[in-house]
Amino acid sequence: MMPEPVVLDAMGGDHGPAETVPGAVRAWREHGVPVILVGQAGVLRRELARAGAAGEIDVAHAADVVPMGERGVGALSRTGSSLAVGLDLVRQGAGGSFVSAGSTGAVVAGAVGRLGMAPPVLRPGLAVALPSVRGGATVLIDAGATADPAPEMLLQFALLGASYAQLVLGVADPSVGLLSIGSEPGKGNRLTRRAEELLRWMPFRFHGNVEGHDVLAGTVDVIVTDGFTGNVVLKNVEGSVRATLALVARCGIAAPEDLREVARRYDPETHGGAALLGLDGTVVVAHGSSGAATIARACVVARDLAEGEVVARVREHLTVKPVP
Amino acid sequence: MMPEPVVLDAMGGDHGPAETVPGAVRAWREHGVPVILVGQAGVLRRELARAGAAGEIDVAHAADVVPMGERGVGALSRTGSSLAVGLDLVRQGAGGSFVSAGSTGAVVAGAVGRLGMAPPVLRPGLAVALPSVRGGATVLIDAGATADPAPEMLLQFALLGASYAQLVLGVADPSVGLLSIGSEPGKGNRLTRRAEELLRWMPFRFHGNVEGHDVLAGTVDVIVTDGFTGNVVLKNVEGSVRATLALVARCGIAAPEDLREVARRYDPETHGGAALLGLDGTVVVAHGSSGAATIARACVVARDLAEGEVVARVREHLTVKPVP
Repeated sequence: MMPEPVVLDAMGGDHGPAETVPGAVRAWREHGVPVILVGQAGVLRRELARAGAAGEIDVAHAADVVPMGERGVGALSRTGSSLAVGLDLVRQGAGGSFVSAGSTGAVVAGAVGRLGMAPPVLRPGLAVALPSVRGGATVLIDAGATADPAPEMLLQFALLGASYAQLVLGVADPSVGLLSIGSEPGKGNRLTRRAEELLRWMPFRFHGNVEGHDVLAGTVDVIVTDGFTGNVVLKNVEGSVRATLALVARCGIAAPEDLREVARRYDPETHGGAALLGLDGTVVVAHGSSGAATIARACVVARDLAEGEVVARVREHLTVKPVP
Repeated sequence: MMPEPVVLDAMGGDHGPAETVPGAVRAWREHGVPVILVGQAGVLRRELARAGAAGEIDVAHAADVVPMGERGVGALSRTGSSLAVGLDLVRQGAGGSFVSAGSTGAVVAGAVGRLGMAPPVLRPGLAVALPSVRGGATVLIDAGATADPAPEMLLQFALLGASYAQLVLGVADPSVGLLSIGSEPGKGNRLTRRAEELLRWMPFRFHGNVEGHDVLAGTVDVIVTDGFTGNVVLKNVEGSVRATLALVARCGIAAPEDLREVARRYDPETHGGAALLGLDGTVVVAHGSSGAATIARACVVARDLAEGEVVARVREHLTVKPVP
């Protein structure tokens, strides 16, 4: 059976069609992922011809473009943009998932506005995979979609994050930790104390509480938190890595160009893309600077997440009612 | 006028009296800070004699010791410990402030239990100074004392943090930022959206929202947040710095020993000590590994904070009622 196409915002990202179009061609030729390119049709057809793939990838026209940096209300108001048209295609069932290298804020706001929730998921969670010092990666969810979740929503984020670890990172039996301010049970705030009680009843390896220093340490495969704390942590990782490397360079310990690879590795948005989970359609946000290879990779992740039916897993597991 | 003595938990820290006693002697001889040493009197008198300062520093006897790593209820139950006896001396007015190199958790729990709040402060805030890449430092408050504050408590933390920046870091007119998940007004969770409205009316330079990547960037002098987010961020800085340096070393870019100084600089507890503000008596927590010089510095910070009457400043400024 042909997989459902991935709808790709071809105008998103720092490089636009010059990278998204070759990325779509690679996703199709190298990974068998069918893609629908959304954007200014003339431009996209020219790029397809340049890539030697005229007529090989479907194109859907969208006249308008959301500029990088525009977010929230501004982004939502552009109904003719490649972002809006692409999301509408997913809502209408023309594709199973959506990929954009546009600004995370705009994509999240647009997707929450245009795609409905997938019941029984109550609110969407943004999953990002952060590289750990042990060599693997840790999924952080929610990294910024839902700022004030109820404890029950954290359970759903945990299930979504565990599915992401299985489908994208290939971890068979992921361990899940709850981000808090002390590893002992009962430590935390009102939200985490309640969530901790409920998480003990969920069908995965619950590690208990983890702390801020566990985020990059590889302590667990999935770290669950609210979207406020998660977004602060995601950006704090980025800033702390940058500050550390700046200090190493300033102390004359290493040359800045030698440190660039380390910086790039910890750039929080590069790792296979952030996935917005729990909506009626999977959304993957690739980094703005993504080249064709990264775009192709994001399309594969989107296809895998859509085929893995992460929401169906939440639905199934939540029939195991948590004991209050 | 003789300043009020600083009460020093002489048994706290990894090195105990071997470093706290010479630290007290230095605080007195080099900075004119009178200290009361609290702990096992025989041991302390021997150390004073060894330091050539027999009879020069007051000693208060406490038979018991809180082991490093013991926190919360365990720490609170040891009523004969140097921690408990020292805090009681402050409560009884024998000293104006308290310094310990014991575990932060134990000292915070003990201080909250044994010292009352200083009205009009509602809940205590833990202030830490993090070095910024620009060379100065940024005060993070609350770094872990109050996990679920109301918006009004964040205003008080902001005033306390601004006083800390003035008294300890010597910043004449500190700028204050609210930690959130977007720099635009209105971004954040329920707590920060309300706090942001109120902070605009406070008598200091309010910068607006800052984000996770601003913590080490020197964007503002004081970053205000709830104790849950602040503690996660504090530990995340520590873990991110450690992970970055491990990766730099593993890539063969620099030798681990060359990186140790950078690691030490970002150890989140080394920078003049964390100050627990808003209680009836200032409490400074020095790092567990503190040597005599760091202990002396913590005593100076405690004296400065006590003399600066940070709570009196809150009292004065809160007569400027925030407009709801």
